Amino acid sequence: MKVAIIAVGTELLFGQTVNTNAVYLSRELNLMGFDVMYHHTVGDNPARLVEMLDVAYKDCDMVITTGGLGPTQDDLTKEILNDYFGDELVLHEPSMESMKERFEKLGRKMTDNNIKQAYMPSRSHVFKNDQGTAPGCALEKDGKYAICLPGPPREMTAMFESYVRPYLEGRTDGSMCYRLIRTFGIGESDLETRLMDIIDGQTDPTLATYAKEGECYLRIASKRADAAEAESAVKGMLADVKKRIGEFIYDCDNRDLWDVVGEKLMAKNITISSAESCTGGMFAEKLTSVPGISAVFERSFVTYSNGAKEEILGVKKETLEKHGAVSEETAMEMAKGLRKVSGSRICVSVTGVAGPDGGTPEKPVGLVYIGAVCDDKEVCRKVQMRNISRQWNRNFSMLHMFDVVNRLIDGIKD
Amino acid sequence: MKVAIIAVGTELLFGQTVNTNAVYLSRELNLMGFDVMYHHTVGDNPARLVEMLDVAYKDCDMVITTGGLGPTQDDLTKEILNDYFGDELVLHEPSMESMKERFEKLGRKMTDNNIKQAYMPSRSHVFKNDQGTAPGCALEKDGKYAICLPGPPREMTAMFESYVRPYLEGRTDGSMCYRLIRTFGIGESDLETRLMDIIDGQTDPTLATYAKEGECYLRIASKRADAAEAESAVKGMLADVKKRIGEFIYDCDNRDLWDVVGEKLMAKNITISSAESCTGGMFAEKLTSVPGISAVFERSFVTYSNGAKEEILGVKKETLEKHGAVSEETAMEMAKGLRKVSGSRICVSVTGVAGPDGGTPEKPVGLVYIGAVCDDKEVCRKVQMRNISRQWNRNFSMLHMFDVVNRLIDGIKD
Repeated sequence: MKVAIIAVGTELLFGQTVNTNAVYLSRELNLMGFDVMYHHTVGDNPARLVEMLDVAYKDCDMVITTGGLGPTQDDLTKEILNDYFGDELVLHEPSMESMKERFEKLGRKMTDNNIKQAYMPSRSHVFKNDQGTAPGCALEKDGKYAICLPGPPREMTAMFESYVRPYLEGRTDGSMCYRLIRTFGIGESDLETRLMDIIDGQTDPTLATYAKEGECYLRIASKRADAAEAESAVKGMLADVKKRIGEFIYDCDNRDLWDVVGEKLMAKNITISSAESCTGGMFAEKLTSVPGISAVFERSFVTYSNGAKEEILGVKKETLEKHGAVSEETAMEMAKGLRKVSGSRICVSVTGVAGPDGGTPEKPVGLVYIGAVCDDKEVCRKVQMRNISRQWNRNFSMLHMFDVVNRLIDGIKD
Repeated sequence: MKVAIIAVGTELLFGQTVNTNAVYLSRELNLMGFDVMYHHTVGDNPARLVEMLDVAYKDCDMVITTGGLGPTQDDLTKEILNDYFGDELVLHEPSMESMKERFEKLGRKMTDNNIKQAYMPSRSHVFKNDQGTAPGCALEKDGKYAICLPGPPREMTAMFESYVRPYLEGRTDGSMCYRLIRTFGIGESDLETRLMDIIDGQTDPTLATYAKEGECYLRIASKRADAAEAESAVKGMLADVKKRIGEFIYDCDNRDLWDVVGEKLMAKNITISSAESCTGGMFAEKLTSVPGISAVFERSFVTYSNGAKEEILGVKKETLEKHGAVSEETAMEMAKGLRKVSGSRICVSVTGVAGPDGGTPEKPVGLVYIGAVCDDKEVCRKVQMRNISRQWNRNFSMLHMFDVVNRLIDGIKD
């Protein structure tokens, strides 16, 4: 079944709010086997919403709206869909009751404009709102469906999970399976060149590449009548993809690199510390975003100045004078000094020129060294980034740190 | 001039990517005086993109597309708009040259599929891409405009700022002025209550509040025929707003709290260090995102474990045993210990329960203490957050650290 998602709300057109509802609904509907064909956003304007409905129903069997169910005068989505489906609004007693209860519980007075939220199209299927006052509803006529959901993401997702998903199950044909494969260290066009013959010949499963903040993603998707069949088709193509670019893949389930690394560290009980210069704590911050990481991570250092590198990590003054703070020698002394201070099994350091200033012809902005030690292994990676921005350079350096650590972990014999 | 924004990309319909481009463009275009009427998203499908163009041009004078300019076969936006405007694609030498240069600089091989990116509609105005390979372009025919921009947000925004904005200026009627006021420490409904009479009576300038990641923003906007008139209207309302909620405002130009704090520290030459537990380096990372901060920031510590707090900062074992790691006593000993270790004028610490685990009835998830010392001042702030998520709790703790530091700086007599 083909679906269009229409968001209603002038604030979206002002650029004050991100339409995360469309993201959530698209992901969930695709997984259920629906084909999401369009997203549209219109303001709180009846004529334009009607026009958008006409456009959507040309191609699609179902329209899902978000927003415009509130108590105020410019909330008109339900009223318009009621007219569009030739229905009439009647008081829906259960909605009225639960709204009254809600206001009582909160100790707030129910205002007159709230009452309009309990009027629903007479032939509609009403969805309860457990997180707010405005109920949703489903309309159906001549094989066309409409589902009206509230705009606040918390209310919308809760309503979808509890009531809309069960309503939709069984109304879908086929089943979608997809995997999001994350790679690091290879550009998008290089990736595509290596996978060109698969991409050229594809029907189902499909393979697509896209670039994202210094990484490249791959998406393998299949839609079949049978869920197991779709899954096996995706698996088959994934195996083929792995053969060609396996060395760049760090996850096949859309997890962030720090989550992958953090979970490996915890699973293998490998302790880790970091000493950061140009990234200023970003590595430690990302790693500590992983719940439970305190089992393997207990301290780290931001050694921004030369003095800090000497005093905290024992980097030699001569090394800094002879090779400079941004050098292989300094990066390695930072990592080795960190091991002495922390006693961690993996110690990783970074030193680089994040910009916008501080670059020289020999050491331009975007030059970074990552040092790491693990047992008897010592690694140094030099990276010369395209200088995109201070924040991008720092982010990309941090990703390289995790990539270095990831490869060190994989090299450890159990 | 009425505008529709069309995002092209199947990944958006799969719910894998958030359409932040529409948010950015809507905000900027509104400010310039354009009326954004619709957002649409279609997949990489020629027929559906053409249909969407037909729909858009019924109401709008200008369409802005994002995405589908890349080197791969499913990137077709430019080709379709070229046909739609009855133009033909020809090799655009300057684009070819800068693409070649770019690949040489990176030491990467230019693959054949890249060349298609240098073919542009013959009558189009080409926009250089300083951040990537795919140029953008503007087409015009019979009073209808189309602007094709790349999909990656970094490339799109840089192209918009450098080339598209100047192209569009003068093509708009009226002038919009607005200020984004950032506050911390006050909730949205409290804010609205204090400003209710302004909001109720508004026509132009308008005042809107919105909540964002633990902060509240205010937007004052005015659209007038004359730019100076709009500016003065905004200024007048801003003065009124400051009188009522000035104590919560930290910036009137939409700068991040860490930028405001970083710039004050540099301007007053106040050195700073941090000792972070639950935030894991987030404070240091945000502070070092400010260019030039090395003048006042030279070292910081992530003391995640009790052992690290004792060994690095000299927190007493008895304090940790008697009061626990998450306590006013520990936070203050961290800050004072940090002053001994770093010698910085402002020393700030944080210790809290970020979750999802680790909470107790006495110290639930979301409880955090921030300690700070500056000259002879000592401050401790206790915060009990609503426990929204580990990352939200960490982020909100980091904002509180900056707020504490900001108020300390403001308290220093010059």
